[in-house]
Amino acid sequence: MTPSLLTLDTPAALIDETRMTRNIQLMQARMDALGVRLRPHVKTSKSEAVMRRQLDAGAEGVTVSTLQEAEACFALGITDVLYAVAIAPARLEQVRALRRRGCRLGILTDSLAGARAIVEAGQRHAEAFDVWLEIDCDGHRAGLQPDDPKLLQIAEVLRAGGMTLVGVLTHAGSSYELHEAAALQALAEQERALCVAAAEQLRAQGFACPQVSIGSTPTALSARDLTGVTEVRAGVYVFQDLVMLNVGICRADDLALSVLTTVIGHQPEKGWVLVDAGWMALSRDRGTQRQHRDFGYGQVCDLDGTWLEGALLSGANQEHGMISFAGGAPADLEQRFPVGSRLRVLPNHACATGGQFDHYHAVDATGALTAWSRLHGR
Amino acid sequence: MTPSLLTLDTPAALIDETRMTRNIQLMQARMDALGVRLRPHVKTSKSEAVMRRQLDAGAEGVTVSTLQEAEACFALGITDVLYAVAIAPARLEQVRALRRRGCRLGILTDSLAGARAIVEAGQRHAEAFDVWLEIDCDGHRAGLQPDDPKLLQIAEVLRAGGMTLVGVLTHAGSSYELHEAAALQALAEQERALCVAAAEQLRAQGFACPQVSIGSTPTALSARDLTGVTEVRAGVYVFQDLVMLNVGICRADDLALSVLTTVIGHQPEKGWVLVDAGWMALSRDRGTQRQHRDFGYGQVCDLDGTWLEGALLSGANQEHGMISFAGGAPADLEQRFPVGSRLRVLPNHACATGGQFDHYHAVDATGALTAWSRLHGR
Repeated sequence: MTPSLLTLDTPAALIDETRMTRNIQLMQARMDALGVRLRPHVKTSKSEAVMRRQLDAGAEGVTVSTLQEAEACFALGITDVLYAVAIAPARLEQVRALRRRGCRLGILTDSLAGARAIVEAGQRHAEAFDVWLEIDCDGHRAGLQPDDPKLLQIAEVLRAGGMTLVGVLTHAGSSYELHEAAALQALAEQERALCVAAAEQLRAQGFACPQVSIGSTPTALSARDLTGVTEVRAGVYVFQDLVMLNVGICRADDLALSVLTTVIGHQPEKGWVLVDAGWMALSRDRGTQRQHRDFGYGQVCDLDGTWLEGALLSGANQEHGMISFAGGAPADLEQRFPVGSRLRVLPNHACATGGQFDHYHAVDATGALTAWSRLHGR
Repeated sequence: MTPSLLTLDTPAALIDETRMTRNIQLMQARMDALGVRLRPHVKTSKSEAVMRRQLDAGAEGVTVSTLQEAEACFALGITDVLYAVAIAPARLEQVRALRRRGCRLGILTDSLAGARAIVEAGQRHAEAFDVWLEIDCDGHRAGLQPDDPKLLQIAEVLRAGGMTLVGVLTHAGSSYELHEAAALQALAEQERALCVAAAEQLRAQGFACPQVSIGSTPTALSARDLTGVTEVRAGVYVFQDLVMLNVGICRADDLALSVLTTVIGHQPEKGWVLVDAGWMALSRDRGTQRQHRDFGYGQVCDLDGTWLEGALLSGANQEHGMISFAGGAPADLEQRFPVGSRLRVLPNHACATGGQFDHYHAVDATGALTAWSRLHGR
């Protein structure tokens, strides 16, 4: 039997292929217009089918958040891989092995301790690692300030140790907290300017530092000018989600990932519909909780994807979801959403929801379904 | 090389076997003393090694939250399985197939629509399904009030259709919101009394209704008397977690699940230690957020499990965790927690954190590690 949205086991992660393709083309076109390479962050989809479409559209190389992702990408023939989490010394042996097999795997550090560990491992194995230095452009996570003297000290440790300083890298993760175009444009410019400034600091001291890598989906889609930047990394743009809708950098009909679910019961007095998608499907991500519109655990849509205004997955247990209705449930709740009928839920955060599944089902423009596996491992 | 906590790839899910064994023995002893069977909910661990220890200690049968769990348990030779989520009609074919292969699989409903679908599928395949009726004892999720006339109507539909009414079932999930012993004892009694009342309603109308199944970890550990109850279901007790600590039904040294993580950097000005355990490891569960003590994404411990008072995983990105220190970070932050050193994080919610991993590493009393896989599938 050909699977359909009516027969697929639920909960299932659906990808609207038309929307995803549009998201990929839009981001690629913007990066092309700004004159930079796009290096998609594949932690969002962790899917070969999705990555292939990104690369076919013009992306160059991939960004990963674990070495398992790097291994899986390399196994698929993708050789240009940037591991954009500060390297733990114990991982250098695995990095070296991947590089020996032909993977151009770049690694990241923002500390003298990290640089020294890289040099030690590199010298022990006669391996000149490709190293990026992490810059902090908005105070939200890791990285060095562009004017931190440690930046030059780390570069010097790497140079003296025979390692290759590829470039500087930053991520304006605080962009997720914004929702106004002007603020997003300002943060995009800050991300660009501070990362370029770090590269200039290094170049002024005689370090080549050829690459400048920046990126987050909101800043990438808000930037007006990327002078001095060589590549942009972004991940969630490929699916978009409710957090990004609240940020204001996509429209409701750009959201490509949804969770297919089945109605399993009702609490008519409470106005609840119970479904078989809980947090094991949607994840516990409540990324819209602190935004201007809180979508609970997700926005509920009809089977065909039509947004049901006011219908939210307001509660989630492991395999139960509770749908409630702002302004009151329909009087014919049990007839409108009978036991066994199906709905879709748009997630807060596509990366987190995708992470709950082993595979996706892509829905093409004709409605045909294709299973797309996720990469093996974390 | 024998794996150790210093060489294991991180993040990793560790089980302290001594604590887990104590948790299993304590719950079993309480159920034995109260004269009821214990049917553990295996959605918490989804691990054969853990289930075996529960069954070896005296548990009878298992509770599952998906049919994939039921399939996996049956494949391991566990034949007494209760699927404690209201059945979606499309799943009845899979239920029937499992039963035909010898699995005593019980199913649940709380609606006339569900009962009619069960009867229809049962009659089509000459299968007398074992059906439980779900009772709502605290308004938190699914189920019928004990005095809802639909209870008898559903029982009548099942009887007329030749199905087997096994019993009534409830789950006092609101117990997670409590934290005082008296309130927990009262809710445990409410859970017992209302579920027994539902059974009595049915028996008064001539339905046998032999079984009365209740349970949640907090009520199971708080109940003083379980007269009329035949079995108790509980899940998270096997690992316990910070939510349960806040509820007050375990001690800090009962928490058996933790996430091993590696330090990857620092932000000394902010007093942060950065680690490689983010929400992909801990999950996005913030279950302690609304409790009297908020642990962020988890309580940080030294490698040996010693609780570092005031050290919380206060922020989590996909593969990054930010540790901060209440009352200020140690002055020697980078020396105290050097890059490459390891810590453990106790999770808010063991079910959600376990769900982020493919396997566990059990640590026995001697410190030896054993990999324990999780069940295949969801």
